[in-house]
Amino acid sequence: MKILVLNAGSSSLKFQLFDMTDESVMAKGIVERIGLDNPFLNYTGREKVKFERKDPVDHKKALQWVLEVLVSADHGVIKSLDEIMAVGHRVVHGGEKFTGSVLLTDEVIAALEENKQLAPLHNPPNLMGIYATKEVLPHVPMVGVFDTAFHSTMPEEAYLYALPVELYEKFHLRRYGFHGTSHRYVVQEAAHRIGKPLDSLKIVSAHLGNGASVAAVKYGKSVDTSMGFTPLEGLVMGTRCGDIDPAIPIWMMRELKMSYQDVDTLLNKKSGVYGLVRGRSYDMRDIEEWAEAGDQEAIRALRIYAYRIKKYVGAYAAAMGGLDVLIFTAGVGENSPIVREMVCEGLEFLGVKIDKEKNNSRGDAIISSDDSRVVVMSIRTNEELMIARDTYEIVRR
Amino acid sequence: MKILVLNAGSSSLKFQLFDMTDESVMAKGIVERIGLDNPFLNYTGREKVKFERKDPVDHKKALQWVLEVLVSADHGVIKSLDEIMAVGHRVVHGGEKFTGSVLLTDEVIAALEENKQLAPLHNPPNLMGIYATKEVLPHVPMVGVFDTAFHSTMPEEAYLYALPVELYEKFHLRRYGFHGTSHRYVVQEAAHRIGKPLDSLKIVSAHLGNGASVAAVKYGKSVDTSMGFTPLEGLVMGTRCGDIDPAIPIWMMRELKMSYQDVDTLLNKKSGVYGLVRGRSYDMRDIEEWAEAGDQEAIRALRIYAYRIKKYVGAYAAAMGGLDVLIFTAGVGENSPIVREMVCEGLEFLGVKIDKEKNNSRGDAIISSDDSRVVVMSIRTNEELMIARDTYEIVRR
Repeated sequence: MKILVLNAGSSSLKFQLFDMTDESVMAKGIVERIGLDNPFLNYTGREKVKFERKDPVDHKKALQWVLEVLVSADHGVIKSLDEIMAVGHRVVHGGEKFTGSVLLTDEVIAALEENKQLAPLHNPPNLMGIYATKEVLPHVPMVGVFDTAFHSTMPEEAYLYALPVELYEKFHLRRYGFHGTSHRYVVQEAAHRIGKPLDSLKIVSAHLGNGASVAAVKYGKSVDTSMGFTPLEGLVMGTRCGDIDPAIPIWMMRELKMSYQDVDTLLNKKSGVYGLVRGRSYDMRDIEEWAEAGDQEAIRALRIYAYRIKKYVGAYAAAMGGLDVLIFTAGVGENSPIVREMVCEGLEFLGVKIDKEKNNSRGDAIISSDDSRVVVMSIRTNEELMIARDTYEIVRR
Repeated sequence: MKILVLNAGSSSLKFQLFDMTDESVMAKGIVERIGLDNPFLNYTGREKVKFERKDPVDHKKALQWVLEVLVSADHGVIKSLDEIMAVGHRVVHGGEKFTGSVLLTDEVIAALEENKQLAPLHNPPNLMGIYATKEVLPHVPMVGVFDTAFHSTMPEEAYLYALPVELYEKFHLRRYGFHGTSHRYVVQEAAHRIGKPLDSLKIVSAHLGNGASVAAVKYGKSVDTSMGFTPLEGLVMGTRCGDIDPAIPIWMMRELKMSYQDVDTLLNKKSGVYGLVRGRSYDMRDIEEWAEAGDQEAIRALRIYAYRIKKYVGAYAAAMGGLDVLIFTAGVGENSPIVREMVCEGLEFLGVKIDKEKNNSRGDAIISSDDSRVVVMSIRTNEELMIARDTYEIVRR
């Protein structure tokens, strides 16, 4: 009944081991500097430990390292690897093929290979994690859980861009959306906490981390989301610009003589709040602190950041024909009373009324006043648990 | 008390002559094929006439042609050019300098020259019209009326993109918005028709022509608009894509090996509803007709077109903290009951309630039901009259 959840990046491997009898986390951690000298493993089992190595490790060796620690006498939490019932993998891009979590058969893995170019930064390392697991734990079933899957219920008018339709047909150029596992988790939690069936609710979910996206979830199904073909579209993020005039990349090439690679880097790595405060930070905690201290640039960045979210709340209320629940989640969403307040300010006409006292809390809380027609909530997201649940569910069947 | 309004394009010169004692149109028309063989002048004075020529005309000769007809014995409506009190010019891009209509002094014209690169398609021909007028009517005062000016009241959070702020400071890279003269005209008309002061109303104005944009007008001032740095951003248009993931232009260059010039053409000329129906038409009247006949692609294009507008209505209600009036204007907005109905469907939570009977009208009408909290209107726009009024106002002072 133990499920290992893996999230493989290009130079890191995150893991959590769940005991599904009570959904508790037995151990978790991360291997960093994969492919580089001096990799290390930050591990939290019964206590926190940092392990270090001299020589580089690949994804396979990194996984072996994690498994050794999980069963070790000193720090282990299980006696044998046989206790691991299944491994759940986070996969960023499921393309149009994967509309839900799926057992990772050889056929499925081959199909994922085909999706590589849709998420060139994310899917290749996700696949390395899958191949590593196949070698190291050949008899353990694996499940893939996709960031895009939850949004596969979007109607055509939400996922099609107004581009030549042949580009969609030939190259699958469309809105996919990301953060689906997080949006799915928090809407379920929200419905549970307020004691109403998910399929009776119109929910806007704002996942505000370093990457950020909003989703419109009507009666349990995602009907629109702000990230698009890639995770660049939509909200203002740590270093990503979100929505801009699509003529701007072209203007940069024509007028500033930039290459498209440079434009790509500028929009993804040097924009967002980072660009608005001249590269001083991409961390909203810094921006908030400076804003409170009267830094005009930080105040402006914060206002632009919140205003974009506010417009999406309105747009998605229009898309769903109303709004019952507004959720804030992920780093900024769970921990920033000021961002939540700025987003909700002026949304009284939608039935949104924040309780300033309640809004001062962090983590799980209802932050709207008792007479607010819309329930506004802060919910801790837990993508790993969602992946563990899906994995458990699929392997049990 | 006669005002001549000019709208100079690269190959055309549109004109209207107003009698400002009663704001009536004395004559109007267009010279087409400027710079080409066989130019012609479509003229409506006391009756409709078409004049043709063999040899090409430039903007100056085109204007002389118009003036000759205006004072001609056969077709003229004035006796002498001295009756023309002033000339009002439509200018697309006023940049950050021009926040209202202005007397076109030499200084102002020099400043407009500097703005040329902000609107490379529109401002240079606008300037040709101005220079032509200066030569042909040297003693007649001229006024410039800018498409961008009405939006100059937008707050920072609406006009700044989340890009490195240096790009705004050095290159004036920001949201400007267009169609300002039209949005300004229809919000004034709306307030007048419902008998409420403009500065008490929260209005969303949807200008739906071949180009299309939405504006949020709070208490008489534009606070946000969907077109941005260029007229490419925002709504789905005849051939323009409007909002897309800004990573898409980069993807097109990387994966499809397109040049930025090709991408520019694709997004501006081959996208929008035109792209969605495989280049069969960019005219919404065709799309609607085909949709009614059951053409699935046309139905889909229509749904995508209306859905985008609907989301902007919601977003701008959120931006303004509510909605009192929703205006549809320009070709599609004034004449398409189906588009208006599709946009308003599901907006009941905002207080929008369409009367299907009333919505079947064309031109000026209130199309919401009597018990609709939000007044929904179709209003004929009249940018030329607005330009004439501004010109008259400024020259009289």
